[in-house]
Amino acid sequence: MGDVSSCPPLTRSSVQAAHAAIKQHIHRTPTITCDTISHLASTPQTSDSLQGTPFANRTPARPRINLFFKCENYQKIGAFKARGAFHALSRLSKEELSKGVVTHSSGNHAQALALAARTHGIPAHIVMPTISTPSKIAATKGYGANVIFSGSTSDEREAVVADVIKDTGAILVPPYDHPNIMLGQGTLALELEEQAKDLDERGLDAVVAPCGGGGMLSGVATALYGTGIRVFGSEPSFEGADDAKRGVESGTRIEKVKTLTIADGLRTPLGKIPWAIISDKEKVKGMYSVTEDQIKAAMRLLLERAKVFVEPSAAVPLAVVLYDENFRSMVEKEGGEQGWNIGIVLSGGNTTVEAIAKLFEPASEQQAGRQEAKLGMNGERVAENVAG
Amino acid sequence: MGDVSSCPPLTRSSVQAAHAAIKQHIHRTPTITCDTISHLASTPQTSDSLQGTPFANRTPARPRINLFFKCENYQKIGAFKARGAFHALSRLSKEELSKGVVTHSSGNHAQALALAARTHGIPAHIVMPTISTPSKIAATKGYGANVIFSGSTSDEREAVVADVIKDTGAILVPPYDHPNIMLGQGTLALELEEQAKDLDERGLDAVVAPCGGGGMLSGVATALYGTGIRVFGSEPSFEGADDAKRGVESGTRIEKVKTLTIADGLRTPLGKIPWAIISDKEKVKGMYSVTEDQIKAAMRLLLERAKVFVEPSAAVPLAVVLYDENFRSMVEKEGGEQGWNIGIVLSGGNTTVEAIAKLFEPASEQQAGRQEAKLGMNGERVAENVAG
Repeated sequence: MGDVSSCPPLTRSSVQAAHAAIKQHIHRTPTITCDTISHLASTPQTSDSLQGTPFANRTPARPRINLFFKCENYQKIGAFKARGAFHALSRLSKEELSKGVVTHSSGNHAQALALAARTHGIPAHIVMPTISTPSKIAATKGYGANVIFSGSTSDEREAVVADVIKDTGAILVPPYDHPNIMLGQGTLALELEEQAKDLDERGLDAVVAPCGGGGMLSGVATALYGTGIRVFGSEPSFEGADDAKRGVESGTRIEKVKTLTIADGLRTPLGKIPWAIISDKEKVKGMYSVTEDQIKAAMRLLLERAKVFVEPSAAVPLAVVLYDENFRSMVEKEGGEQGWNIGIVLSGGNTTVEAIAKLFEPASEQQAGRQEAKLGMNGERVAENVAG
Repeated sequence: MGDVSSCPPLTRSSVQAAHAAIKQHIHRTPTITCDTISHLASTPQTSDSLQGTPFANRTPARPRINLFFKCENYQKIGAFKARGAFHALSRLSKEELSKGVVTHSSGNHAQALALAARTHGIPAHIVMPTISTPSKIAATKGYGANVIFSGSTSDEREAVVADVIKDTGAILVPPYDHPNIMLGQGTLALELEEQAKDLDERGLDAVVAPCGGGGMLSGVATALYGTGIRVFGSEPSFEGADDAKRGVESGTRIEKVKTLTIADGLRTPLGKIPWAIISDKEKVKGMYSVTEDQIKAAMRLLLERAKVFVEPSAAVPLAVVLYDENFRSMVEKEGGEQGWNIGIVLSGGNTTVEAIAKLFEPASEQQAGRQEAKLGMNGERVAENVAG
């Protein structure tokens, strides 16, 4: 996508310029609050508080946490990825645009690029593994993209992309490892910052965002650097999906990850350019990881209590706020009496009822009607699934 | 609940007065649009258009339908019932209030009354069948109500209510068959009317609401009578749950219904006082019913496309708009070139991930991976469930 050195610098004002460039094309998604979940976040988690009696304990508890959910599930194509794709295209010259764009992705970036290309009236070539789910292929075609199939290894995919570039001269738009993508994704933080202030004039103390390839987390950190709002990243811990956290701890970026975490948007390793931001303690104050059960419990609350339809990746930041004892101790220490106002990035809502059915299928009738899962909070076992 | 004859008359201005009385206590819930679903509604339904390629057919099709979703799933307690309960309490004298309130309900009305009573600082006695789901009992207790168990027949429940009234002097607040409840529920229509106008200055041509006991539908019809906005009711057809439609057709209210439709909020027969409004063709222009599969298909679209978490009952009006050929022919005939702006009442979002898992469990792996269900639209079979 052009020369990286010709991109704007990774600064808050570049994110502001990106926002001005794309805001005609994207939704200013709502920021919502949910008293029940904020109350839960302010209460030590027990099986009762997760199972429908959040008001049983009404004494104010530490840490006091008010949550502000940035609903990128209501963004065009159902995820924040539309921001980066529109920004990337806004940075191309007319001549570059005329050749079309190409990427390899089977997820939200494919649809985002297809939509942005259609809006600009240019071709989008999307390389997808033959084994992609039919609904994702159909959705990408539905946005008018030219879908080209490949094998599923990254070598196979990149070979097909190279062929497309050779044949058409199309410009490669990568999913996260590019400054223009990072700046585009970061625009959500500018809106969240303003919207939280409209809801509570104290504004935000912190933002927690999910981290896969790191394009969005690094963009958010860039957008908020210098504002006093602390930025934290969150990952699944399953099968080493917490590569960014482990990389930051060891001081070396981890380049390969192989995980089937339910948070399927966060399976990718951190990109090189995002790494430069995310490993900078001044910009990202900390990385936290959560278990699959904690992600499911947070996702349940977002669905059943906040009534917002989100994909598992979007539930990861809330899982950190609710269940990570280190995170909670830090908020208690730094937030004091007043507590913290925390922005939570709900990154997307592209899942299906079948996928939810698979995640939460009722315990079989032979079982006792109550499955339990260790959520790792205060050593308590927390009921995760009450059949019925 | 006092004497019915002392209630305000069933007029639009009484609904406006009800709104003024309760608006400090309720949420002004958002009205949202969803381009994808409006496009689907404007396109004859085929398996492709339901399975992720809504843009495959981009030629404008008749009837042209723009949908405006009134999100009462974001109302306090997760359903419109909070409106009626707060209004009923606002009509009681201090002396009446001091004795507390009582009802029998295992659903949204129980929680609504419990919340309204807690807000007024008075006791709420809620009679629930012993077999109620634990999460509903917990939620009702969570709002501070005194839950009293009974058998599950209506005789058993009413006997317990009578005992409570004898013991405490508490005032009975019925779930739907009362003018104050109807006027309270109708307040959602005033907001929807205004919000749709803010989104499109043409305003609404019609509203479709679900109908169970009929308290909300009759309130909506009362609120909009004289505005030119047509009001329609919608019911499940399963096991005779379309009692209001059948009653209106035959001219006699049907007093008993026994159905286990998935739209569990709509299993009750139409109440006497709602009947007087709903059977008046000037006020409710028509009743429509849909199959279980049509409700599921509409619910899937609301979850996966609009990203709003709703209970099955809330999907019934959209199912009518998408799949009822009589309704669609009428819109085509009456709407002409311009089509209709239709308000859809999303009545509530109180369901669980387990319930959704049960509704949409993936086809077993022995099966071909594709279940089909007849949706009854143009005689086509429509793919309902693509495993994976």
